[in-house]
Amino acid sequence: MDEASRPVTISFIAESAGVSVPTVSKVINGRSGVAADTRARVEALIRRYGYRKPAPAQRSNLLELVFDELHDMWGVEIIRGVERVAREHQLGVVLTEFGPQRNAIRYWIDDTLTRRPACVVTVAQLGAEQRDQLRARGIPFVVFDPTVELPDDVPFVGATNWTGGRTAARHLIGLGHRRIGMIAGPEHVLCCRARQDGYRSALEAAGLPVESDLVVRADLTREAGHTAALDLLRRPRRPTAIVASNDLQALGVYQAARAVGLTVPRELSVVGFDDLPVAALVDPPLTTIRQPLTEMAETATELALALGRGDRTPQIGLELATTLTVRGSTAPPAD
Amino acid sequence: MDEASRPVTISFIAESAGVSVPTVSKVINGRSGVAADTRARVEALIRRYGYRKPAPAQRSNLLELVFDELHDMWGVEIIRGVERVAREHQLGVVLTEFGPQRNAIRYWIDDTLTRRPACVVTVAQLGAEQRDQLRARGIPFVVFDPTVELPDDVPFVGATNWTGGRTAARHLIGLGHRRIGMIAGPEHVLCCRARQDGYRSALEAAGLPVESDLVVRADLTREAGHTAALDLLRRPRRPTAIVASNDLQALGVYQAARAVGLTVPRELSVVGFDDLPVAALVDPPLTTIRQPLTEMAETATELALALGRGDRTPQIGLELATTLTVRGSTAPPAD
Repeated sequence: MDEASRPVTISFIAESAGVSVPTVSKVINGRSGVAADTRARVEALIRRYGYRKPAPAQRSNLLELVFDELHDMWGVEIIRGVERVAREHQLGVVLTEFGPQRNAIRYWIDDTLTRRPACVVTVAQLGAEQRDQLRARGIPFVVFDPTVELPDDVPFVGATNWTGGRTAARHLIGLGHRRIGMIAGPEHVLCCRARQDGYRSALEAAGLPVESDLVVRADLTREAGHTAALDLLRRPRRPTAIVASNDLQALGVYQAARAVGLTVPRELSVVGFDDLPVAALVDPPLTTIRQPLTEMAETATELALALGRGDRTPQIGLELATTLTVRGSTAPPAD
Repeated sequence: MDEASRPVTISFIAESAGVSVPTVSKVINGRSGVAADTRARVEALIRRYGYRKPAPAQRSNLLELVFDELHDMWGVEIIRGVERVAREHQLGVVLTEFGPQRNAIRYWIDDTLTRRPACVVTVAQLGAEQRDQLRARGIPFVVFDPTVELPDDVPFVGATNWTGGRTAARHLIGLGHRRIGMIAGPEHVLCCRARQDGYRSALEAAGLPVESDLVVRADLTREAGHTAALDLLRRPRRPTAIVASNDLQALGVYQAARAVGLTVPRELSVVGFDDLPVAALVDPPLTTIRQPLTEMAETATELALALGRGDRTPQIGLELATTLTVRGSTAPPAD
């Protein structure tokens, strides 16, 4: 091998820059403790000679996708996004559902460390311990739509939940609604808190009072949405529109409206969140905030692979835009 | 070691055949990408010199699940069944969607032969060539719900489609319907033919004439079901009940009924097929024939693993029972 084609080593860069090997290593790994001008000099040399960090060990042509539990309604949309990117890179996708008791997590982490996948995309809640184990073995991972607060250095892809909640309420305000109820999600689910705050923000911006008797908290199921909506609709000054925290809750609102004899959208407007395939199939078709699940999964996979290649990524956490999909469940208020 | 007793190597075969070592390796391992005459020449030399493949490598703790395309509505139910069995055996599931152009099939087969999975469960249509390649490497496979006729020696798990079609029509006959229409599925899809034959059989058994103007053929989508149902409902002697070939078609019937001003079930009864999660969520909830997709997937996985262990299996092909789920879309005819 002649001089020119020999791979550039850290020592070569160190020697050329007139600094120590640990200093170059610090620059490469983005660590602190290097003077700004030294860092600039080292980075210039890296760019010039094209040093590439070697992979810690050979990675397999697999990537891992993990769920706590697969849900009918959105599992496939996520899987499809991961599969599309995997095909592009000719990677196999190892799909693991930890299951109702999360039994599989124990053997999954060991098997994954052995399999040395190109990366991990996790819809499941991984604990700090599992994240450390992956890090220690140089296996990059990205959290899909985190439901709890994560340390700043954990890469993630989510959706603009706050903006989505705001858009839902603004759509109703634009139609002329003044008493807009909300079925909020569980308090510990981060995206639900964001959706609720977005709703409140829109009301405040429109100068509408945010009345606590307009918000009911419920689980993210149709049954819970049904109960919560009955509660809202039986109050003396019932809302003329309801924002649900997801599409399943919104379908529960449909049931409740029927039960108390209100026609959607003529007497009650309803907005969902997610835009699951079912939203277009119900009667009337549901106006909802679309969460781009497939695109989010594609982005998460691309990001994880980029981290694995050691690419510089502009962002390690990002939220993709939600959009309003207007269908048949919203209209101006009757009176 | 003298010349004669030296083991025959792949390089020796390659040299004798005038081809490369990788080509010989491909022939030995049953992979694609070798011209037919080259394959024949290499095989003849192998026979002549008695090359013996070293004992097949240990199977990995993976299993393969393949789809042509993942569909929202039933993909997850199948995946969940496979995952449940995989967890029990602590196996990883490599999930592959061949994709819209089935591009992935080319690298999937080679990667699978290399991965040596415990077994393959295929919802996708594998050709005879791929089945032969898996067989050549001793990788057992089971076809999930075959849509085309397969040779007798191909293991499969399906559902009792004929019985399901019959049950749907008998339910309506039992309610007093005499003019029962059917939206048949595409002619080339085996399960659709079975469903239609079951419908016809029930009518014949009840002494009802099977009139050709009561059957319309349509794709398995809501849109196609809508068009087909409009056609049926605008005929002079319209049916009082319609059996659809799947739930999506049935939702199209709902749309068509609304369009011509008929109320389901008071003026038109509707029966679907599959029992997708959406069936319980629509208004009125859909009466349908349940296909036990998750149980079918569990059974297919267990069968494939049993074949891999070399267990004696009582059956290599079986159909799980469909069941009638009565909800709100069927009632006695109005008159």
